[in-house]
Amino acid sequence: MNLKQLAKELNLSFSTVSKALRDSHEISIRTKNIVLAKAKELNYQVNPLASSFRKQKSNTIAVVIPEVVNGFFGRVINGIESIAQEKGYHVLIYLTHEKMQKEVAISKLLQNGRVDGIIISLSEQTSDTKHLEVLKENDIPLVFFDRIPDHINAPKVTTDDYNCGIKATQLLIENGCKKIAFLTISPKLSISNKRMNGYAEALKMNQMKMDNSLIVYCSTDDARNNELVRNLLKRKNRPDGIFASVEKLAITAYEICGQLKLKIPDDIKIITFSNSYMAGLLNPTLTTITQPAYDIGREAAAILFKLIEKRGNHFLKENTELNSTLVERNSTKSKRKRKVIKSSDL
Amino acid sequence: MNLKQLAKELNLSFSTVSKALRDSHEISIRTKNIVLAKAKELNYQVNPLASSFRKQKSNTIAVVIPEVVNGFFGRVINGIESIAQEKGYHVLIYLTHEKMQKEVAISKLLQNGRVDGIIISLSEQTSDTKHLEVLKENDIPLVFFDRIPDHINAPKVTTDDYNCGIKATQLLIENGCKKIAFLTISPKLSISNKRMNGYAEALKMNQMKMDNSLIVYCSTDDARNNELVRNLLKRKNRPDGIFASVEKLAITAYEICGQLKLKIPDDIKIITFSNSYMAGLLNPTLTTITQPAYDIGREAAAILFKLIEKRGNHFLKENTELNSTLVERNSTKSKRKRKVIKSSDL
Repeated sequence: MNLKQLAKELNLSFSTVSKALRDSHEISIRTKNIVLAKAKELNYQVNPLASSFRKQKSNTIAVVIPEVVNGFFGRVINGIESIAQEKGYHVLIYLTHEKMQKEVAISKLLQNGRVDGIIISLSEQTSDTKHLEVLKENDIPLVFFDRIPDHINAPKVTTDDYNCGIKATQLLIENGCKKIAFLTISPKLSISNKRMNGYAEALKMNQMKMDNSLIVYCSTDDARNNELVRNLLKRKNRPDGIFASVEKLAITAYEICGQLKLKIPDDIKIITFSNSYMAGLLNPTLTTITQPAYDIGREAAAILFKLIEKRGNHFLKENTELNSTLVERNSTKSKRKRKVIKSSDL
Repeated sequence: MNLKQLAKELNLSFSTVSKALRDSHEISIRTKNIVLAKAKELNYQVNPLASSFRKQKSNTIAVVIPEVVNGFFGRVINGIESIAQEKGYHVLIYLTHEKMQKEVAISKLLQNGRVDGIIISLSEQTSDTKHLEVLKENDIPLVFFDRIPDHINAPKVTTDDYNCGIKATQLLIENGCKKIAFLTISPKLSISNKRMNGYAEALKMNQMKMDNSLIVYCSTDDARNNELVRNLLKRKNRPDGIFASVEKLAITAYEICGQLKLKIPDDIKIITFSNSYMAGLLNPTLTTITQPAYDIGREAAAILFKLIEKRGNHFLKENTELNSTLVERNSTKSKRKRKVIKSSDL
């Protein structure tokens, strides 16, 4: 089915149909609706003209994220909005609440072209990415950030999770930790794995054995997370260092340490990924790896608008990596420093 | 223009037009589009049938809020989503970034019926509510929460801001404060005024004079807020108590106290509205008034769905008030308590 055939089916001129699909002001709303309905009915392939028609209708982009209570995603959104604002676009935010099922439902909803492009960070549960491939097949511009899929060919904006995993673990080793626990979320997530690989690498470089019982997988169930961290810290052979992959797990560790009368940093040292503006006011102040959340948002949006505007489509690099910052505070402090082996390539 | 006239204009039967507007499967998409376009062209008043047609098209509700970095709105969204999920609805989130201009633009976007209902909390700048009245005139179900307009007749979900303003101020008085500063945001916002009225009332009950120089209006500009709070705390006659209307201002006060070597709570006591899960881990732990954010979201959504489903429309009460909780921690502690006068009606 091409434009000419569509025009014939509609008993309208080629020019009228073309103009209707381009949303020209010369064509009445009534005719546009007829043309669009027929195009849909006959499965007329969306071409640049039709796509431009859709574009002019929506002027919005969607941001699909797991949650907003955590400050990271809020800051990413602010970065995205700062670019969208310049472009005169609206931003719609959809939450998956860490559920793959919800992510699939939202993808279906977005499949019909109600937005001009999508920026997405995967849910904790997402193990299969067919629903995202369908978006790509429908020619909807797509950019991933932070929690990215492995096998989809689309631009991705991430941070140096692997290197930060190494650096965080090295800092704990340097400050005397010998049994370092790694608290993380779903092993399905790219970021969890990259951070854990960095942790494993730092241990290896320092001839420390990896102990799987020190790796704790938490979830969205706070009560269960509490129990897991409590069990970890009540063990006879409890860890003397904690590297938390997400902020809420470090906060859980702070709370459990308080309940168990464990002193931070004397009994146990803690470092975490976090974007909280309160880290420096906690008791003790919390050592963090801070992701450039706002810049991640700006970068992802800038790439998305290049895709939408079809500028330099083929020259876009697939991976953009921004650097996080390690901010050393009191939760990892020690009087005696230990020599830590750092590979030369860091 | 009624349905009969519309049918005549279209040269279609009354039954066909009625079915088309009800999105009946007996009518072709093409005819539905023609009917809808004509209805729009002739400004045919949306009636329950047409509204039901729109409803079946969207299955989404919009939440319009100022920002998401603050944990309060994130929790409200979670409450809204918990109800929307049960109803099989999607939730779209729009951010105004505290700009009235953005709120107006979003309202225009939503005016055309792309969602079935809207839950909204006003931006800091919103001084005029014409754009919201237009939504009401377009018969789009509308529920306000937290930051509500004064003059629009629509359901509103709020907390006991006035009473909490009294209680927070009383707690500071009870713990010996004699010069209590009130840090707030825009005086245009309902919540700012209610909290300040509570503050003024508690002072009055205790025969304390209200000093306007102790009322500091902050904004979205963090650097400027820092300067305002710093100037306040460097004054010769500096306050010995701070009541912050929003969390970020309490955090700013903590930071400035640290820089100026003022001890909390010995030199100055601090209480704030906050939903942070870190309040109990700060140094010192922070006394808070915590709004039932999740429940506010659930309540607002429950009311919105009653409006959407037109159940008991006329029996909906206009104002729903939920209670916040005062959690006393170390930032307001004192060894000596003072007698505080509390009016009997609290």
